[in-house]
Amino acid sequence: MFLAQVIGSVVSPVQHPSLDGRTLLLLRPVGPTGERCAKTRIAVDRSGAGVGDRVLAIDEGNSGRQLLGVPDAPIKTIVIGVVDSIELAGEGVYDHREG
Amino acid sequence: MFLAQVIGSVVSPVQHPSLDGRTLLLLRPVGPTGERCAKTRIAVDRSGAGVGDRVLAIDEGNSGRQLLGVPDAPIKTIVIGVVDSIELAGEGVYDHREG
Amino acid sequence: MFLAQVIGSVVSPVQHPSLDGRTLLLLRPVGPTGERCAKTRIAVDRSGAGVGDRVLAIDEGNSGRQLLGVPDAPIKTIVIGVVDSIELAGEGVYDHREG
Amino acid sequence: MFLAQVIGSVVSPVQHPSLDGRTLLLLRPVGPTGERCAKTRIAVDRSGAGVGDRVLAIDEGNSGRQLLGVPDAPIKTIVIGVVDSIELAGEGVYDHREG
Amino acid sequence: MFLAQVIGSVVSPVQHPSLDGRTLLLLRPVGPTGERCAKTRIAVDRSGAGVGDRVLAIDEGNSGRQLLGVPDAPIKTIVIGVVDSIELAGEGVYDHREG
Repeated sequence: MFLAQVIGSVVSPVQHPSLDGRTLLLLRPVGPTGERCAKTRIAVDRSGAGVGDRVLAIDEGNSGRQLLGVPDAPIKTIVIGVVDSIELAGEGVYDHREG
Repeated sequence: MFLAQVIGSVVSPVQHPSLDGRTLLLLRPVGPTGERCAKTRIAVDRSGAGVGDRVLAIDEGNSGRQLLGVPDAPIKTIVIGVVDSIELAGEGVYDHREG
Repeated sequence: MFLAQVIGSVVSPVQHPSLDGRTLLLLRPVGPTGERCAKTRIAVDRSGAGVGDRVLAIDEGNSGRQLLGVPDAPIKTIVIGVVDSIELAGEGVYDHREG
Repeated sequence: MFLAQVIGSVVSPVQHPSLDGRTLLLLRPVGPTGERCAKTRIAVDRSGAGVGDRVLAIDEGNSGRQLLGVPDAPIKTIVIGVVDSIELAGEGVYDHREG
Repeated sequence: MFLAQVIGSVVSPVQHPSLDGRTLLLLRPVGPTGERCAKTRIAVDRSGAGVGDRVLAIDEGNSGRQLLGVPDAPIKTIVIGVVDSIELAGEGVYDHREG
C-alpha cells in the first residue's frame, strides 16, 4: 500500500460495466512528508476522495475487485481511504483537518 | 493503472490462440501532461487505439484475461480505454478532440 | 520479501471491516546495514512492531489475506516479523537487542 | 509484456519436474529501437528463441503456467514469441529477417 | 526470475508454521557478470544455497507456495536453484565450480 496525493482526474470510456460512472483519479505517490516519490498512477476511487486529498492506495487487482464487489472488474489500483493523520517518529507530520 | 501514449506496434507469432489476430501495441507510459515516465511496454489492445492515442492501460493478468474473456490467455498488459480528457488541479491538460 | 524500518504510522478510515482497528505502519525499506533503499510503503502489522523496529515485510496480497485469515481483505503489504538479527558474509550486522 | 533481447543462457538444477530440460534464457529488456532499458531477467523459453533474438516476454506466473500447461510450475517470466517486426510511429524500426 | 548472490541471512520469528525452521537468505540481485543490479531482497531457501552462492530466484507468491507445498504460506521470494553456469553471447561468464 502507498500514500498518494490526488492531483486530478481522467475521463475514459473504459469498456466494462463495472467501471461505469466511477471516477478515475490521478494519483501522485508521496512520502510521509508529502514529497513526490514515484510516477503518477490512475486509480478507481472508493472513498469519496477529491483533488488535494492525501489518500491510502493499494495496487493489487484482487483487493480492488473485492472492494468493489465485482469479481471480474478490470482494476489494479484503488483508493481505499482518505488519510486522517500521519506520524513520523512520534511526531505528527500530517493532519487532514489542517490540509 | 497508468496513462500511456501509443507509439507503435509489434508483430510476433505468439503461440497461443487467444492472441491470434490481436494487435500488440507499443506503449510509452506518460505523466498527466504527456511527459515520458517509464520504459515502454507491449500491450494487447481492447479499445481500438492507434498510434498517437493517449490511453489508459492496466498491468495485471487477471484483468486482461477477464476483459478478453479467455481464462487462459497469456497476457499481462492491456489497453482498456482511449482517454477523453485529463484534469490536473482543476484545469484541463489534455483533450482527445484537440489531439 | 524485504527488510524495512518502521518509521511511523498512518491513520485512515479504510472502509473495510477486515482492517478495523489494525495499525497501519509507515515502512522505510532498508538494505542489510540499514541504508534506505526504496520509497516508503504502508503496511498492516501482524507482529506487534513499533516505531524503530527492523522488520521483515512482504508485498503480496494473498500472503496478507492468509495471515489475517480474511479472504477478502484489501491488503497488499504486511509486516510478518520483527527481525532478531542479520548476518552479512558471516558477520553480524544487526542485533535486535542492541537496537 | 516487454521486449527483450536474448543475450545468453543459465544452467541451474531447478528442483521441480516442470522445468526439467527447459532452457533458461538470459534476457535484456530493450526499448523499441533496441536500447537497453532495464535489468536482466531469467525466462523460460516457449518459442524456440536463441541468443540474439528479439523476443516478447511476459512477467506473470499465471501466464507462464498456462502456457506450459503445468498448473504448479514455479515460473514467473516466459518468452512467448520471437518478434517479427516493430513499427514506431508508422516506420519499421526492426525486422527479424534483417537481424 | 532473476539471478542473485547470497550475501547473508536474516533471523526473524515469522509467525506462521509454514516458515518454521526455514532459512531466510539475504539476496543481492546481480547481472550475468555478477554486477549488482537491484536492491537486496529476503528469500526463503529451497535449494540448500549458502553465502557466496549464485542462485536463481523467483519473486512470485504462488510459485513459492507450490514449491513448499504449503498453500497458505506467507511467501513471495524463493531461491529455486543454485546456478551451475552462465553463458553470455556464447561465452561462459560464470561456472559454479570455479566460484
